[in-house]
Amino acid sequence: MKPLQGCLAGLCLLLVAWPVFADPLPSWRAGEAKSQIIAFVEDVTDPDSPNFVPVADRIATFDNDGTLWAEQPAYFQLIYALDEVRAAAEADPAFASTPALKAAVAGDLKPLFDNHHAGLMEVIDATHAGMTVSDYIASVQDWLKTARHPQSDQPYDAMVYQPMLELLRYLRDEGFATYIVSGGGIHFIRAFAEPRYGIPPQQVVGSVGNERFEIVDGTPELIKEAGIFFIDDKAGKPVAIDRHIGRRPIFVGGNSDGDLQMLQWSTAGPGPRFGLIVHHDDGEREWAYDRDSAIGRLDKAMDLASKEGWLLVSMKDDWAKVFPWQK
Amino acid sequence: MKPLQGCLAGLCLLLVAWPVFADPLPSWRAGEAKSQIIAFVEDVTDPDSPNFVPVADRIATFDNDGTLWAEQPAYFQLIYALDEVRAAAEADPAFASTPALKAAVAGDLKPLFDNHHAGLMEVIDATHAGMTVSDYIASVQDWLKTARHPQSDQPYDAMVYQPMLELLRYLRDEGFATYIVSGGGIHFIRAFAEPRYGIPPQQVVGSVGNERFEIVDGTPELIKEAGIFFIDDKAGKPVAIDRHIGRRPIFVGGNSDGDLQMLQWSTAGPGPRFGLIVHHDDGEREWAYDRDSAIGRLDKAMDLASKEGWLLVSMKDDWAKVFPWQK
Repeated sequence: MKPLQGCLAGLCLLLVAWPVFADPLPSWRAGEAKSQIIAFVEDVTDPDSPNFVPVADRIATFDNDGTLWAEQPAYFQLIYALDEVRAAAEADPAFASTPALKAAVAGDLKPLFDNHHAGLMEVIDATHAGMTVSDYIASVQDWLKTARHPQSDQPYDAMVYQPMLELLRYLRDEGFATYIVSGGGIHFIRAFAEPRYGIPPQQVVGSVGNERFEIVDGTPELIKEAGIFFIDDKAGKPVAIDRHIGRRPIFVGGNSDGDLQMLQWSTAGPGPRFGLIVHHDDGEREWAYDRDSAIGRLDKAMDLASKEGWLLVSMKDDWAKVFPWQK
Repeated sequence: MKPLQGCLAGLCLLLVAWPVFADPLPSWRAGEAKSQIIAFVEDVTDPDSPNFVPVADRIATFDNDGTLWAEQPAYFQLIYALDEVRAAAEADPAFASTPALKAAVAGDLKPLFDNHHAGLMEVIDATHAGMTVSDYIASVQDWLKTARHPQSDQPYDAMVYQPMLELLRYLRDEGFATYIVSGGGIHFIRAFAEPRYGIPPQQVVGSVGNERFEIVDGTPELIKEAGIFFIDDKAGKPVAIDRHIGRRPIFVGGNSDGDLQMLQWSTAGPGPRFGLIVHHDDGEREWAYDRDSAIGRLDKAMDLASKEGWLLVSMKDDWAKVFPWQK
């Protein structure tokens, strides 16, 4: 019995000592941002705190593009769509039959954004309309295996932020359910959310395209169709959270004005709330952009941050590491 | 130490003996239906079975009206809406200003169903458009406290099926996530799904009305609007499951042709699948209706049941008890 007893005593020591030594956010530099996050989580999970929140209400929602992974030089879903259009045009030169598809194949993005993004929608539709949902997800997964980011030469799903991976993990360890609430396509994000973020498909909320059920040659299928059913951005985010989750998050993270209404709605609820904005101010290790950026513009939400008590996270100062593969 | 040791030994005995004695479905009569359900659940949860399914894929979806609770003499959500319209007309005689609202107040349902249910939609819109989501849910909860079913004189949320409550509980005990996928309104169902069924809001999928985010007097609110955004019925059900859950259920229950496509899509997936149809054949304890019923018509799905291997549950023969309050 002696060795077992010794082993058990060692285990007890380890369990007792663990909270003292383990840093749940090792890629966050010591400072105000890290302290505020940890203080909030410890407060709402402490049964003796007046701010204690039961597990069922520990809902955390995060934007994806620019919050959990990078969004430069363009949204990765757009890069995927352009790659698919080019591949289709190579396989069949007749594919690029319209001005928008021709522009996409030529890499000329400007005309795609004119006229309320009509060209962009045409490109996106052309790459998935008629596919089954599972074929589409498999196609995104194939692309992630081979495509490389033009500046880092990393796979796109390696462009995730190490400090945010740690935050997701920390929140889940403390009983939170972590959700993505993104303007990106729900099926696109589900292609990598579980392996990359530990977020299962039912906790991914995103923009949604049209889709139909059809029995094809005796097999029931779900087929993606052209056209957008719901855009999960700006004022759409709190609506999507209500429809999908039905509870108001107590922890919310974003990086742009597209997350403003989600921040407002979530942090206006009763009891303790935490709003976090990732500020892209690190032109060395990532990109520096905010008020004047076409992608991920952060303007109104930055103005409101201090008044509303939202934490503005400086990638440059608060993060010891940005990407998992950086030293 | 003696009493404690004795207590612990007794606990061990209880834990070991439990599976032998406990009947997970006490309100199901011994027979083919009960045996099939238990055999399926034991098979997919047995790590040594070739049909073992990991917990993450143990998704079960159930229709609500006619599957988890009764739907006669009319959908309870419709009865709620009519009660609200009548209350509004009593408070303000000018409220019933249109033919549809006048018919609703008079209890004349027929004109409401004409012209693609236009009158019905008008009644439903009139009872919630402009309310916040939380006020609407509170209103349904108030109604459930006071309104009584015209035949049983029970609260409407006592009209749940005891055998289905046991099935939900049994599936959850065996690691399944249980979802509602209903043609009923998502906010209406969420008003009682957690206390009645043990199903939290994020696991309720339903039809969805229009809704907007708005800052009202400085407070961010979600406001219900007139008009339907998505009808979660028939071919809409598999689409809604894909959008909301992102995994194909392995256990699915319904009671009408509105559940046909959900049954088809779910049970067509690879590996073991279970499809269940509640057949309303008990005119004594509940209601007897199927092919010719305006509410909960069961026709095509009944024809396909034996070919597809779906279990047709006879309320009369397979259920020892229908409602929790029945002897």
